[in-house]
Amino acid sequence: MNEKDIKFWSDVSLDMMHEASEVISPLVGTKKGGEIVKMGADGTPTKLIDIAAENKVVEILEATGRPVTLISEEIGELKIGEGASEVVFVVDPLDGTSNAIKNIPAYGISVAVADASKESKTIKSTQSELKSSPFRDPSTGGTDNLTIKDIELGFVQNFATGDVYEGVKGCGATLNGKKLTPSTVQDISTSSVGAYIYRADMGKIDGLCKAVRRMRILGSVAIELCYVADGTYDAFIDIRGTLRIVDVSAAKLIIEETKGLVTDESCKELDGKLNVLERTSIIASCNQNIHKDIIRILGGI
Amino acid sequence: MNEKDIKFWSDVSLDMMHEASEVISPLVGTKKGGEIVKMGADGTPTKLIDIAAENKVVEILEATGRPVTLISEEIGELKIGEGASEVVFVVDPLDGTSNAIKNIPAYGISVAVADASKESKTIKSTQSELKSSPFRDPSTGGTDNLTIKDIELGFVQNFATGDVYEGVKGCGATLNGKKLTPSTVQDISTSSVGAYIYRADMGKIDGLCKAVRRMRILGSVAIELCYVADGTYDAFIDIRGTLRIVDVSAAKLIIEETKGLVTDESCKELDGKLNVLERTSIIASCNQNIHKDIIRILGGI
Repeated sequence: MNEKDIKFWSDVSLDMMHEASEVISPLVGTKKGGEIVKMGADGTPTKLIDIAAENKVVEILEATGRPVTLISEEIGELKIGEGASEVVFVVDPLDGTSNAIKNIPAYGISVAVADASKESKTIKSTQSELKSSPFRDPSTGGTDNLTIKDIELGFVQNFATGDVYEGVKGCGATLNGKKLTPSTVQDISTSSVGAYIYRADMGKIDGLCKAVRRMRILGSVAIELCYVADGTYDAFIDIRGTLRIVDVSAAKLIIEETKGLVTDESCKELDGKLNVLERTSIIASCNQNIHKDIIRILGGI
Repeated sequence: MNEKDIKFWSDVSLDMMHEASEVISPLVGTKKGGEIVKMGADGTPTKLIDIAAENKVVEILEATGRPVTLISEEIGELKIGEGASEVVFVVDPLDGTSNAIKNIPAYGISVAVADASKESKTIKSTQSELKSSPFRDPSTGGTDNLTIKDIELGFVQNFATGDVYEGVKGCGATLNGKKLTPSTVQDISTSSVGAYIYRADMGKIDGLCKAVRRMRILGSVAIELCYVADGTYDAFIDIRGTLRIVDVSAAKLIIEETKGLVTDESCKELDGKLNVLERTSIIASCNQNIHKDIIRILGGI
């Protein structure tokens, strides 16, 4: 993505976050916000407050007048505008829905942007190699071959506090405009860790619960992953395998832009495809020592 | 406590919370706030932000011109003013210190008030029975025989959101002036539970982690106990046995004034003495069904 496009899509993302925050604000802490209105594309119930946020996301993208593909929790995949998509937006319009409904101050939005022209090139070259293959028309700007590794811009906003995290591939990450640096903690016994340990494999979790200094479960994965980027947490762990790639796409880039580490529970790089059904485990940490310790402890070693 | 005294000490408590919030505000999210300045009376390190809050608490009580006893994390027990204490203030000036330092939006103050004249009467009557006993002079307004059951006023404020919880014995509980009602959830499998499960007995915790719908660990026990009172949580559990009576004194009253339940992990009423060394386990819940289920699950039944 060139500098001009980075600026344009960053402005769109920041506008989107601001507008989504405004639109959900009257529904925060209300029963109405929690009313189930339909089933989402990911198979989970969609609440009124989720739809309000997602509708605003669609509206903002439509208003750009440029062709984009939106991948989002409730809607699945949506092509907006005419012609091949320039970019793919991977959005969780409201991360921490149940917190928002209950007014627990940890809920927000996650916006990740990938360059869709990369996808078209991939398909074109594959097509020239395999002429008879049933690939989709590259002019529609498909997302089939794009993975989380293709994300070039990542934004997370905590609506309850207003904090905005921002990452641009190769250019670092910021919180409210200030450069981010992760924690320098080296010893797991002094660490503060966000860890989704309920409904997980308790055999793996036992050791972790004994090893860390502090554990938190705030209920907003995107925000808590950004807490690894800014040093609030030393690590974040979810090994339930139920996390969606959509939920972590922006925060993964933000952490990696601070030189923090993000892998799955087998210590492999995340490479999930950009769609709402793709799920993953995640271990994010501030440095190699903490990361290795967590992998070791989860492995029962 | 008569109506006039309830009004007077409630106003003192509300003023104390407001002033403490103001004084810590510049230290929130700063390294300076986290500097260790001494060891507290409870044996844990005292940070600059803790001392700033506690000094303000002392200042507010001194300004009343009335004799009170303060029981607080860093200071231990402090007699303020001349003559027998009218009331005992049991205060955690900053609950969730590490959140405040890291700017995680869940930290606040807990203020509980017991009638000290009750204590003097208890000692007097005991003295008349056991004339040679080495009891302290009742005129100093001692706290030796007061327990958490003697708390008559309870206040908790979340400094990050400004929310104020208030309970008056026999008169109900409120959040920002509105009457509180706990959740009506009856089934543990649909419950949202705050649970301090790290560094706990994992054998007891395993079943709970599998049984609940959602689990949270926000890092501020006083606020999270109040979440049981207002229906944000269906229950709160800490069976590590390391919770201080000081931390839960206000919130216990607030929950009980909503008809919610508070016991230790053996399902016994809390009766810890009002001092900084007294520790307890706690199970708080919205109703009998949820409470029984939790006790059953923790017992491995």
